[in-house]
Amino acid sequence: MKPSLITLLTDFGSQDYFVSAMKGTILSRDSDARIVDITHEIPPQDIRAAAFNLLAVYKDFPAGTIHVVVVDPGVGSARRGIIIDCAGQCFVGPDNGLFSWICEREKNFRAINLTNEKFFRHPVSPTFHGRDIFAPVAAALANGVDLQEFGPLIDDPIKLESLAPRRTGSGQIEATVIHIDRFGNCITNLTRDHLVAGATLVVRDREISSVREFFADSGVDLDEFFCVVGSAGFVEIAAQNSSAAKLLNLQRGDVVTLR
Amino acid sequence: MKPSLITLLTDFGSQDYFVSAMKGTILSRDSDARIVDITHEIPPQDIRAAAFNLLAVYKDFPAGTIHVVVVDPGVGSARRGIIIDCAGQCFVGPDNGLFSWICEREKNFRAINLTNEKFFRHPVSPTFHGRDIFAPVAAALANGVDLQEFGPLIDDPIKLESLAPRRTGSGQIEATVIHIDRFGNCITNLTRDHLVAGATLVVRDREISSVREFFADSGVDLDEFFCVVGSAGFVEIAAQNSSAAKLLNLQRGDVVTLR
Amino acid sequence: MKPSLITLLTDFGSQDYFVSAMKGTILSRDSDARIVDITHEIPPQDIRAAAFNLLAVYKDFPAGTIHVVVVDPGVGSARRGIIIDCAGQCFVGPDNGLFSWICEREKNFRAINLTNEKFFRHPVSPTFHGRDIFAPVAAALANGVDLQEFGPLIDDPIKLESLAPRRTGSGQIEATVIHIDRFGNCITNLTRDHLVAGATLVVRDREISSVREFFADSGVDLDEFFCVVGSAGFVEIAAQNSSAAKLLNLQRGDVVTLR
Repeated sequence: MKPSLITLLTDFGSQDYFVSAMKGTILSRDSDARIVDITHEIPPQDIRAAAFNLLAVYKDFPAGTIHVVVVDPGVGSARRGIIIDCAGQCFVGPDNGLFSWICEREKNFRAINLTNEKFFRHPVSPTFHGRDIFAPVAAALANGVDLQEFGPLIDDPIKLESLAPRRTGSGQIEATVIHIDRFGNCITNLTRDHLVAGATLVVRDREISSVREFFADSGVDLDEFFCVVGSAGFVEIAAQNSSAAKLLNLQRGDVVTLR
Repeated sequence: MKPSLITLLTDFGSQDYFVSAMKGTILSRDSDARIVDITHEIPPQDIRAAAFNLLAVYKDFPAGTIHVVVVDPGVGSARRGIIIDCAGQCFVGPDNGLFSWICEREKNFRAINLTNEKFFRHPVSPTFHGRDIFAPVAAALANGVDLQEFGPLIDDPIKLESLAPRRTGSGQIEATVIHIDRFGNCITNLTRDHLVAGATLVVRDREISSVREFFADSGVDLDEFFCVVGSAGFVEIAAQNSSAAKLLNLQRGDVVTLR
Repeated sequence: MKPSLITLLTDFGSQDYFVSAMKGTILSRDSDARIVDITHEIPPQDIRAAAFNLLAVYKDFPAGTIHVVVVDPGVGSARRGIIIDCAGQCFVGPDNGLFSWICEREKNFRAINLTNEKFFRHPVSPTFHGRDIFAPVAAALANGVDLQEFGPLIDDPIKLESLAPRRTGSGQIEATVIHIDRFGNCITNLTRDHLVAGATLVVRDREISSVREFFADSGVDLDEFFCVVGSAGFVEIAAQNSSAAKLLNLQRGDVVTLR
């Protein structure tokens, strides 16, 4: 049997012991587990940023991967913990919408409510379910425990607003900046299909109609801003050798219009 | 035999090759070693921040884990290198107090002075004992070398000031902020036992008597500041959806009074 | 057969999913691969910073290690992808000089142009060759695919300017600051041999003639600035308990003179 693969995605940052507490907890229960960090630099409590990063990467991991995601403003409250069984992988974390974009894309999934405390680390701290609930549950999954043992199936996991851009009455499309990456590229929820010939993206008062295949274009008369279909499959707003987010003063959640 | 588990905790940051030099050195000597980062973002030369993070997490790792800690302002000088054998785990690093809070809590431990250069990487750079002494010693431990081979037992490893809060003559308790986490929660050296009914924490001129079980309380008439017993077992000063450290202008080392 | 060891060195930062996409891609193809991060905090598109970090650490990894380096301002353009076979290790990345200092030091190497798309992840995104070309090529190398299968040998991989300092007509040596580390130490391209007795380093208008074996010297009448041969084998300009880079306003690329 192959060793199990467990990814971690949190807003814990890298300056504290938090992430390593989850790793120690996993490795205490499954010494063969292979653990990969997605990122721990999600802005504190930013569920959408975590949801986007997970959406962008889960398909790069092999079948059977267990993704543990802990961005958990409601830790200790009555919010549920869940496992989503989807696309041949398992997703473990609080029930606050973290996995809803993957469920929206994949359509078929099962959701289990984590009620069986047998698989938790005891005592369960009311402030650190990443270590005390989600990490040990992931280790139990890795050890082959059956999904049904963790708790009952539920059919109402929390959903974020849809990832699909909104068509307006006037035939335009209202899209949203769903992520800004390290280089200042602004990732929208538009996909390649939206970029039909003649399409123009209106960002604040500026019209962007240039589309490039990649960032390093070196032709003459280049426009300062351009669109590119990024590696996560979404249309990104980029700037020539610069941060589009900074130059356009764009933030996650900002609306841009395609016409 | 299970593969050995080695953790790394340093102030090397993540922008340079330093940490990977330690990992390459370990894996060159023990290709099966599993290496877990605790954090490398300890403020430069801040021994207490490293000591706190290690104290908060070592028990989450399985028996036999080898913890390598390198926060080492005295590197190259006459300060000793040590192994602490304690709580079924080994702790490797400079003898400057990094492990003293664990020894204080566990009471039983052995300390070995690293004098046997046979286990070092040669030539030993006077500026990078993390790579040249502590990493290869950890690999040798992982390979099963007996503790006694590394050097003589010593009975005087360097101690930090005690982690216990101080009772004053007037029946109050003087506690210290020993860590501030990413969310601005201020971790004190008080524990659950100190939070008796009616206890009030005085932080600068402000009195905090509210105690919560977790952060996400949503009742009415909530106090802005409150105490919570955090995941490391210590009393933390927190603020409603905000950074207590910022709002109260608290820094590590600041004294707060419990009465 | 030992599991393969693959290192990653990029400018992707740690806040996005990029690095984990490379790891998932590798582990989907070689589930036994062991992956070690060198750093992902290379300043965006800074080829020399990556080249320096790699040069400083590659020898700490065992024979057979595969180093994947992605600092790739030209991604998507006509720039080549390469494998360098050198010093018993393999180096995979864009052909933009990343490996040239290692080739300069080692002298013997082979360079292969990555043309065989069989080993790529399809479709190849024009913006993320780290995930779609270099990661899967590294996994294929780890799986034992022969070098010749990846493409033709080439004899003209891109070279950076030489790492050697320049002798001037007047018998002085012009050196360059090639890296500044987390502690503000300024690493030059001078080596121990350059530090002959009486040598003085002129940094801006200041003369530095003090040389120390290590940072923590505690004698009296210590000079504020001093030279130390650092752990990467280069002469570093350091300051007593402080950041030399900040105090001297030095940046990477600045020229200093040895006389």
